[in-house]
Amino acid sequence: DPEELGKWSFYRAIIAEFIATLLFLYITVLTVIGYNSQNSTDQCGGVATLLFLYITVLTVIGYNSQNSTDQCGGVGILGIAWAFGGMIFVLVYCTAGISGGHINPAVTFGLFLARKVSLVRAIMYIVAQCLGAICGCGLVKSFQKAYYVQYGGGANKLNDGYSTGTGLGAEIIGTFILVYTVFAATDPKRNARDSHVPVLAPLPIGFAVFMVHLATIPVTGTGINPARSFGAAVIYGHHKAWNDQWIFWVGPFIGAAIAAFYHQFILRAGAVKALGSFRSNA
Amino acid sequence: DPEELGKWSFYRAIIAEFIATLLFLYITVLTVIGYNSQNSTDQCGGVATLLFLYITVLTVIGYNSQNSTDQCGGVGILGIAWAFGGMIFVLVYCTAGISGGHINPAVTFGLFLARKVSLVRAIMYIVAQCLGAICGCGLVKSFQKAYYVQYGGGANKLNDGYSTGTGLGAEIIGTFILVYTVFAATDPKRNARDSHVPVLAPLPIGFAVFMVHLATIPVTGTGINPARSFGAAVIYGHHKAWNDQWIFWVGPFIGAAIAAFYHQFILRAGAVKALGSFRSNA
Amino acid sequence: DPEELGKWSFYRAIIAEFIATLLFLYITVLTVIGYNSQNSTDQCGGVATLLFLYITVLTVIGYNSQNSTDQCGGVGILGIAWAFGGMIFVLVYCTAGISGGHINPAVTFGLFLARKVSLVRAIMYIVAQCLGAICGCGLVKSFQKAYYVQYGGGANKLNDGYSTGTGLGAEIIGTFILVYTVFAATDPKRNARDSHVPVLAPLPIGFAVFMVHLATIPVTGTGINPARSFGAAVIYGHHKAWNDQWIFWVGPFIGAAIAAFYHQFILRAGAVKALGSFRSNA
Amino acid sequence: DPEELGKWSFYRAIIAEFIATLLFLYITVLTVIGYNSQNSTDQCGGVATLLFLYITVLTVIGYNSQNSTDQCGGVGILGIAWAFGGMIFVLVYCTAGISGGHINPAVTFGLFLARKVSLVRAIMYIVAQCLGAICGCGLVKSFQKAYYVQYGGGANKLNDGYSTGTGLGAEIIGTFILVYTVFAATDPKRNARDSHVPVLAPLPIGFAVFMVHLATIPVTGTGINPARSFGAAVIYGHHKAWNDQWIFWVGPFIGAAIAAFYHQFILRAGAVKALGSFRSNA
Repeated sequence: DPEELGKWSFYRAIIAEFIATLLFLYITVLTVIGYNSQNSTDQCGGVATLLFLYITVLTVIGYNSQNSTDQCGGVGILGIAWAFGGMIFVLVYCTAGISGGHINPAVTFGLFLARKVSLVRAIMYIVAQCLGAICGCGLVKSFQKAYYVQYGGGANKLNDGYSTGTGLGAEIIGTFILVYTVFAATDPKRNARDSHVPVLAPLPIGFAVFMVHLATIPVTGTGINPARSFGAAVIYGHHKAWNDQWIFWVGPFIGAAIAAFYHQFILRAGAVKALGSFRSNA
Repeated sequence: DPEELGKWSFYRAIIAEFIATLLFLYITVLTVIGYNSQNSTDQCGGVATLLFLYITVLTVIGYNSQNSTDQCGGVGILGIAWAFGGMIFVLVYCTAGISGGHINPAVTFGLFLARKVSLVRAIMYIVAQCLGAICGCGLVKSFQKAYYVQYGGGANKLNDGYSTGTGLGAEIIGTFILVYTVFAATDPKRNARDSHVPVLAPLPIGFAVFMVHLATIPVTGTGINPARSFGAAVIYGHHKAWNDQWIFWVGPFIGAAIAAFYHQFILRAGAVKALGSFRSNA
Repeated sequence: DPEELGKWSFYRAIIAEFIATLLFLYITVLTVIGYNSQNSTDQCGGVATLLFLYITVLTVIGYNSQNSTDQCGGVGILGIAWAFGGMIFVLVYCTAGISGGHINPAVTFGLFLARKVSLVRAIMYIVAQCLGAICGCGLVKSFQKAYYVQYGGGANKLNDGYSTGTGLGAEIIGTFILVYTVFAATDPKRNARDSHVPVLAPLPIGFAVFMVHLATIPVTGTGINPARSFGAAVIYGHHKAWNDQWIFWVGPFIGAAIAAFYHQFILRAGAVKALGSFRSNA
Repeated sequence: DPEELGKWSFYRAIIAEFIATLLFLYITVLTVIGYNSQNSTDQCGGVATLLFLYITVLTVIGYNSQNSTDQCGGVGILGIAWAFGGMIFVLVYCTAGISGGHINPAVTFGLFLARKVSLVRAIMYIVAQCLGAICGCGLVKSFQKAYYVQYGGGANKLNDGYSTGTGLGAEIIGTFILVYTVFAATDPKRNARDSHVPVLAPLPIGFAVFMVHLATIPVTGTGINPARSFGAAVIYGHHKAWNDQWIFWVGPFIGAAIAAFYHQFILRAGAVKALGSFRSNA
């Protein structure tokens, strides 16, 4: 749709995606990093704790170091998962009417495959999301200078003890859950039939993000959002974050494609119509 | 209804139950297991901690071991309860329009007793749920090879210090709460009268699961879902999980039957109509 | 309304209140008690820990003892607050259409003062709620025999360091918040005007209970529900629970009366109409 | 609108703002303070712990001291964030139909800039909110006499290690997120188009408060509400709370102004209409 390039609502949607992704990264990375800094003075563990830091998940590591003497001072993994899930709920709620509330290149890609978003719009959204993510992480770095690099910058990477295949699988299934929920929540056929669908829509999307973070933070720190992984890697700049970066683009895009296929061909009976060979009265 | 065997929407519903139960087990068992693995290297307790492991709840045990040196690194029982309740919320929301969103043989059995699901559909749903549970647990085992067996595989069993009667009672009451909530949320009479019922439906069902897990994880690890207990037992394969398996089928089915009776005969005044002997204007 | 004594819907409502209060106490007291028992074997603190037990809040005490060696194994105060708030959400959702979903003598009293419930119905509801609370606590005691008495039975009492006036004040304000939320959520004028009111109704009521528990568990263990305090005192039977029992009836009833007055005369402009002396176009 | 000074509904709205802000401060400050007191007897750290208290966030400090021997006894930062976010949800739900449910001078200021509230009403609301905040904190002080001053009184201040610019920036972005969510949730155009907006409105506002607290408690203790900061400073009276007070008025007001500008001119295309120079069909 080349004509949509001349409309204000198109640029407005891109600005909304940029600001929403910026706010998303600002709040979540600040949650991950912020608690490290405040307790850095009472790190007893010293070198051993710091070595351990680079073994386990970066996000979780932050909390370990902080907890060396003061175990429950931080928000914990549950708090990190709430920060990610809750921000997605608030931002999807706020921007759904402006841009669709993607805030995630994998969601944009899934909706593009299902022909709900044009190619131009999809590319522009993904660019705006990546720029928003970089700015959001940059804000956190400027607020938490000393501790940002020390505590891993909220970047995603494959943790020790997990193979590339496991990390990729975890990202694929996690993104599948998210994008499938997005499809279920925005399906116009369901909106007309099930009264809970249009009303609650942003809530299960936020909860899906919350759940996937609870389950896969130990494996990869949970990407399922290439813009989030890319923005953190750009600002953090550590080679490990860049070596594993491809996992956080390939995995989510494969997961989004499977979710689009599952929704369009299995659940929406698109396959049946295409084949025209099965008694269907769906 | 033998004719429904020829419809695509019937098979679509069974596929949806299979995928939903698979995703449910994948996320929840990964939450239970995943956090163990990451901290296994700093287990100070050694043998004593490991012996203690097999005394208390498997789920909780996981978190104890992990917490031996690094107390707040995991998600805790609250996180496990959120993983179960939140996934049920998301999956009921997503699959309610396709298959009814049971994801639980006890719910299917309760709705069958209330004549809301045919016998063929109920049997096929339960088979799909059990297969989905096995695949979900299998995925977790393949992602967390070393730690899956060591940390109990997320299987349900009766904990030491609790009699068979207590475990059965806890499963009966827990399933009663869940299935009663399902009946209250899907009652067409209430949908027409109370405006909050159709809109919020998936949320209280998810919360009911969350509550029951908070309360009964120390007793049995909380089954209230025979497919969840069966899938974990098949993949874990420990004899203790098999010895107690009957509790996680008999308890939930009794609880579901009581909930169906309570809803149909006490609350819906079915008994009154049957007896025809009481002044009723309900 | 003496004629309502002959209707099935009246007895159905009382049965629903009984079952709902029973389930409420079963889940919440089991959450409070259950976690104590599982870790009692690894109590290092010994006598000192046990003496400390009777100093601070009973609920919290439970978690302290459990945490003596294994600090984060339990659900914590946050988990207890979730158990109370979440169960009220689920039960109000389920029984609102049958009995109004009071589950609390203070709520019944507030609605009686506002003339939304008849005297006979109010008395019968309160009796059913107290019986349900006793049965719910009895079930927990039978499931957790050894630990129930040792860990305070989930009973409410005024904690050391707090005066009777402080405890009474905390109960009054806590119940005011709950009953005011109930009035706001069930006001038919607001239902017609504000679209979020009828749809979300059970959720803010559950959240109000959650908030009050977060804030006042250290003062009195949080009553704000005379049936909950009475049922726990009957089954626990400790003299301290009985000495303070009047606080958990007088406080909630005063709080409910203030909420009824605030809603009916300040917010609903009842006072203005009565005085007839103020230019009002509310 | 001078004529609204003669209407009862105007004074009713001011009373509602006063009571709502009072209840908000009562519950949240009690959550922050209450848990300190109960464990003060087992503070091992002594002087070192007390010195550390004045280094990190006041709220968090409370929990550190309490946790010196009994790490998981309190609600944690996650519990504090829930107390703030949940109370805003309940109070916005309850007072939205009476006064609009601001409970925050920054929200009132943002809505005044967008011409949704008159100047007189805005000033009266802000006065009522500040008085309510003082009374709410005063109630907490009277309930928790010994510990209120010792544990910082729930007051906001800039923490050591953070520059004035960082604190101001954190307050600006935090208030931007809150006020932007308020605008998104109360936009009449969106109400007509997106079915989830009018129904869920109070929930994302509460969640926005929850998120901002999770992220910025380590920086400033999270103000984003000048009445909350002012009330705590008046009752606490410590010079540090007064020295930093301007940050908690200037920051939130700038954030609210940016949110009003972003919503009115970027998202609502007000700028486009004003300039009249862009092809718009929004």
